[in-house]
Amino acid sequence: MISILIVGKGNVGTLLNEAFHSIETLNVQWISSRDLITIPKTDITIIAVSDDAIETVSSKISTDFVVHTSGSMPLSALKNNTRKGVFYPLQTFSKNKKVDFTQIPFCLEATTEKDEKLLEKLAGFLSKKIYHISSEQRKAIHVAAVFANNFTNHMYKIAHDICNTHQIPIEILNPLINETAEKIKVLPPALAQTGPAIRKDVATIKNHLFLLTEKQQEIYTILTKSIQNDT
Amino acid sequence: MISILIVGKGNVGTLLNEAFHSIETLNVQWISSRDLITIPKTDITIIAVSDDAIETVSSKISTDFVVHTSGSMPLSALKNNTRKGVFYPLQTFSKNKKVDFTQIPFCLEATTEKDEKLLEKLAGFLSKKIYHISSEQRKAIHVAAVFANNFTNHMYKIAHDICNTHQIPIEILNPLINETAEKIKVLPPALAQTGPAIRKDVATIKNHLFLLTEKQQEIYTILTKSIQNDT
Repeated sequence: MISILIVGKGNVGTLLNEAFHSIETLNVQWISSRDLITIPKTDITIIAVSDDAIETVSSKISTDFVVHTSGSMPLSALKNNTRKGVFYPLQTFSKNKKVDFTQIPFCLEATTEKDEKLLEKLAGFLSKKIYHISSEQRKAIHVAAVFANNFTNHMYKIAHDICNTHQIPIEILNPLINETAEKIKVLPPALAQTGPAIRKDVATIKNHLFLLTEKQQEIYTILTKSIQNDT
Repeated sequence: MISILIVGKGNVGTLLNEAFHSIETLNVQWISSRDLITIPKTDITIIAVSDDAIETVSSKISTDFVVHTSGSMPLSALKNNTRKGVFYPLQTFSKNKKVDFTQIPFCLEATTEKDEKLLEKLAGFLSKKIYHISSEQRKAIHVAAVFANNFTNHMYKIAHDICNTHQIPIEILNPLINETAEKIKVLPPALAQTGPAIRKDVATIKNHLFLLTEKQQEIYTILTKSIQNDT
């Protein structure tokens, strides 16, 4: 039996609590970071709070082993005086959308092999995708994730805006969006690139710019240039 | 029985020929645009050639009904003196990757209702996603597709570059990429947006820029600004 305390009632805390609760060999407690007056003794305390609250919250915790769940904060952001670690599920979470934890990579970090094994065991209850990642590497993953998730989502947003402006049903793009995401699993994106930018099709690029707003034009131009400079 | 002639041996011509060949009520012939000396009489001639060859190739064809397969060219690019139409499958095609046509939206255009019905029937053999789209709308779809496909693929490319620089296995990003593509089917991308840009998390943005090359920084900055101005 492993005992866990989850601190934090945001998306990650809520979803981890739900996921862990179905596992019989775990004893899970879940509190808000506002309720840090009496902290139960557990094997692992998981702080799932916003990045800028990690220092303050961890400094108030004296249980044996404290980990945070942040992609962008180093292990040293933890200010407890006991053992430290990181338990970072690499995924985008929304409260109103169910998440399949078996498909989520866990990025783990600890200061001893024993603690690494403990985190591995814990992550292993939820997922088979376990990675040992240093604080420096995790920072890079977090930036890569901004491109693969936040910026990609913004590309979808602009594509939808263009469809809406021209009375085109947005779902017409879904198969293309799926195929683009699927293709890079078999073909590196550098080789999967198609379209007017990589073809240096000046006439089509000019026609496209004509249809866009000034802000969209700025993004179109810089990304077209970037695709062309990559080749 | 509908008889079809496909002109063009590129990706689209090759894949359409393959797909149509398995349908018993179609009689399919397939030639290269170089073999336009004797053109068989068919119900529909599909010109699947590069955009800038459509005018020349179509001007040499005198069969009854000629359509092109391009997303960015108007119906009027066809220079045959007979009936004209457009048969545009909205997808990214690579010769070395199989494509499931049942998932592909077909954007159809013709000048008479009878021709529209004929194209509907033909597209209906392959897919249930049939759209009647004007030349103006198709142009807009093509620009939207550049964002949803070409630019999104470039975001993946940069994300992979960052992972490679820091010795991180690129497949760690796949579940995030999948979830990002899936999420917008239930949540509009404007509402699905997460990350430091939308949170106006200046400290994280500054840390991220520090990890990037100059060219990556330029893209990061303009997209962060664009996400923030959207809200």
